[in-house]
Amino acid sequence: MQRRIAPLMGLLSRDRFAAHCNIELLEVGPGYAKARMFIADEHLNAFGTVHGGAIFTLADLVFGSASNAHGRIAVAINCSIAFVKAARKGYLIAEAKEVSIGYKLATYIVTVTDEEDEVIATFQGTVYRKKEAIEGMVA
Amino acid sequence: MQRRIAPLMGLLSRDRFAAHCNIELLEVGPGYAKARMFIADEHLNAFGTVHGGAIFTLADLVFGSASNAHGRIAVAINCSIAFVKAARKGYLIAEAKEVSIGYKLATYIVTVTDEEDEVIATFQGTVYRKKEAIEGMVA
Amino acid sequence: MQRRIAPLMGLLSRDRFAAHCNIELLEVGPGYAKARMFIADEHLNAFGTVHGGAIFTLADLVFGSASNAHGRIAVAINCSIAFVKAARKGYLIAEAKEVSIGYKLATYIVTVTDEEDEVIATFQGTVYRKKEAIEGMVA
Amino acid sequence: MQRRIAPLMGLLSRDRFAAHCNIELLEVGPGYAKARMFIADEHLNAFGTVHGGAIFTLADLVFGSASNAHGRIAVAINCSIAFVKAARKGYLIAEAKEVSIGYKLATYIVTVTDEEDEVIATFQGTVYRKKEAIEGMVA
Repeated sequence: MQRRIAPLMGLLSRDRFAAHCNIELLEVGPGYAKARMFIADEHLNAFGTVHGGAIFTLADLVFGSASNAHGRIAVAINCSIAFVKAARKGYLIAEAKEVSIGYKLATYIVTVTDEEDEVIATFQGTVYRKKEAIEGMVA
Repeated sequence: MQRRIAPLMGLLSRDRFAAHCNIELLEVGPGYAKARMFIADEHLNAFGTVHGGAIFTLADLVFGSASNAHGRIAVAINCSIAFVKAARKGYLIAEAKEVSIGYKLATYIVTVTDEEDEVIATFQGTVYRKKEAIEGMVA
Repeated sequence: MQRRIAPLMGLLSRDRFAAHCNIELLEVGPGYAKARMFIADEHLNAFGTVHGGAIFTLADLVFGSASNAHGRIAVAINCSIAFVKAARKGYLIAEAKEVSIGYKLATYIVTVTDEEDEVIATFQGTVYRKKEAIEGMVA
Repeated sequence: MQRRIAPLMGLLSRDRFAAHCNIELLEVGPGYAKARMFIADEHLNAFGTVHGGAIFTLADLVFGSASNAHGRIAVAINCSIAFVKAARKGYLIAEAKEVSIGYKLATYIVTVTDEEDEVIATFQGTVYRKKEAIEGMVA
């Protein structure tokens, strides 16, 4: 698996916004991904809790990784996020699971939890799958 | 207006994630807000276009500003974003408009455009309005 | 316009669920549609207000009409609806406007109002545009 | 369980739109519900597949049942649905699971499948929980 996924890892290592947000990808395979983000001051909103944009970014990263891991370029069309609990410290963990995949579209559910395994946000997203393979991958 | 909004501006100036993403709030009033973000390398994803998380964060900021400008603390419950065009350079501009407001809930539509006025993303969000006023504001 | 739209009108007249819900299409053109539904007992939920499913169906109908009116078959991928006020009687009116259109995807915002012009729901949806033209239409 | 849930069943039996759409509730308990709908001509859209409004209504019913089964009136605020496969015949089955519940808000994921267990749609929704108990239930 690791070898098959290597070109994707190379691609994802060029994701500057994920790096800017200090997100670490932990696992990735076709239709699945897991990442974490250690909450720092830079992630906080005006109320001192983690900004919705930072939580969305974490969710979006596993969504994008899981969908691109099939080897064809997948771009986000639509995402919906429900914020269910404020987060303040420690790691946030996001896990993406594939709900369905067709030739052109695929849909994922992402759950973001904190270190106590409490749900922070739930996310649903759909990608459009282009014909082009990711460089170095077999689509 | 500016005087009434001053405590909100003070509050928003403590939004570290918005600062980290280099977002500037341009206008804000009850039910309305406008902001912009100059695209830099740090906003890009692995494909070299602006990361969905950065676009969401810009939209979320005007959504949060418009809803909190009524004077009571408003927290995001649910957001849905449709990504309609990739963005690469220049400013992205987000504008939030209030669709409806009740005692406990309010809903907004946000449009994100580029400098050519092309739509980049459209966003719909709902907040829960707490009873507490924002410090220094009359709810 | 009417002549260009005639094949679409023929197609829409075969929408049995819209008929079952007693929805009337009032206007349709490329990227725009308007419809109404007169609230009857059959539309009510257990609390005596209009069922979310009936409101969604009304919104979905104008979304589908506006997107198919360009002449190519368009299928809904993703819809998000915010219910902002309960509806009890009279007509509900839905109006769809196009936010963006590309070769494969198009996005719409729909507003559902009551007879007092109060917003009942706001809806955002994206379609996938197939290559096939609607029979009798020039795509 | 059945006894505790009886007043909710009485309430749900007054859902005229669900009856109009021929939806049968199969199971319900706090935070969980399952229902089915046998596809008939009246559920079809202009293309001869099940109308998005009918699929949404089925999903919405289990969402509403699961959330109201805690004993307090719960109203839908926001729902997002991804349509992943067209449905043509047989039963559609919807199952709602609770993702999180707080004093005022609760969030659910609903999966709609066909008889071959293929996913037809995935749905995410949030309710606002009122203070009032459902008549005859202990909140």
